Amino acid sequence: MDRLDRQIEFILEVDKLKDIVRQNYIADGSRKENDTEHSWHMALICVLLSEYSNQQIDIAKTMLMLLIHDIVEIDAGDTYAYDEASNVTKNKRELDAADRIFNILPNDQAKMLRDIWDEFEKGATPEAKFAASLDRIQPILLNDASEGKSWEEHGVKLSQIMNRNKETAEGSEALWAYVENIINKNVKKGIIINE
Amino acid sequence: MDRLDRQIEFILEVDKLKDIVRQNYIADGSRKENDTEHSWHMALICVLLSEYSNQQIDIAKTMLMLLIHDIVEIDAGDTYAYDEASNVTKNKRELDAADRIFNILPNDQAKMLRDIWDEFEKGATPEAKFAASLDRIQPILLNDASEGKSWEEHGVKLSQIMNRNKETAEGSEALWAYVENIINKNVKKGIIINE
Repeated sequence: MDRLDRQIEFILEVDKLKDIVRQNYIADGSRKENDTEHSWHMALICVLLSEYSNQQIDIAKTMLMLLIHDIVEIDAGDTYAYDEASNVTKNKRELDAADRIFNILPNDQAKMLRDIWDEFEKGATPEAKFAASLDRIQPILLNDASEGKSWEEHGVKLSQIMNRNKETAEGSEALWAYVENIINKNVKKGIIINE
Repeated sequence: MDRLDRQIEFILEVDKLKDIVRQNYIADGSRKENDTEHSWHMALICVLLSEYSNQQIDIAKTMLMLLIHDIVEIDAGDTYAYDEASNVTKNKRELDAADRIFNILPNDQAKMLRDIWDEFEKGATPEAKFAASLDRIQPILLNDASEGKSWEEHGVKLSQIMNRNKETAEGSEALWAYVENIINKNVKKGIIINE
């Protein structure tokens, strides 16, 4: 039963991701979102919006990629997209976390999840590009729904959002066009700062 | 853009599932789990434990089934497994919710999700049986990890757990054997009441 014991240990270990809080709010603005809520949302969004991927994707693989893409944050914490100092050390912290957490699993499954996480991080395949685009788009949808609460809280500038989204169109031209409208609408409202 | 508008409307509507609180606690016992955390956990568990399904399953289909299986609770609320009165009206409340929520989507996707939700509810296919088993097993793992907090809170009896799990072995004999040990351990500890 050693194999199943290790699988169950991993399943209970990743439960900690439910307590890793992100910077954006859920749609009604009542509280911030956590990583598992974000990951659930993304996996479902991936199925519903896969038709807008620039390239054909393996949906099941992309779903799994999205379910696990933030698991390293159990150790590394959520690094806010617009916190430049933290982003310098992010890579090392996340690699250490990946080494520890995925290796709780039996070797074959540890390798499977690590490979798919590495693929997401490298961002080279159609699946990784589409997943990365959704990872940018989902918080924009939630920020817009919550009337820009997180953008206002952090005084986020248009240039920061555009810089963070410079590769979003590589995953999906159609979805980037959609969220670009949302961004522009919030600039006009004065919620996103256009310096 | 009507199609994408409907898809985004659905994506924002189901965000409400993040506020539907379940009766069981997360593993560290600090607070109760919500439906999206539960659904994220289940979709990932499904990938990792699919080798224990009694029958071969389509993993991608089962993942999607688990991601959406509780969406009706946005309207119908979480019905506690051991609340007999609420379980009488559960079916009607959940069917009304399915009619409303899935139909926010474009027709083809509304039908796709409704079909897979109906399949889960009927419990006849290998995917629905395995998904239903995981839906019973995941809270047992969390209850055990949190030292039976939710079992104690509700004074849950062994007969209730065994009744609720009378079909769990149909999805996976191996996983049922594993959780049966957990249940017996908690009976011995006096956490689950053996009347």
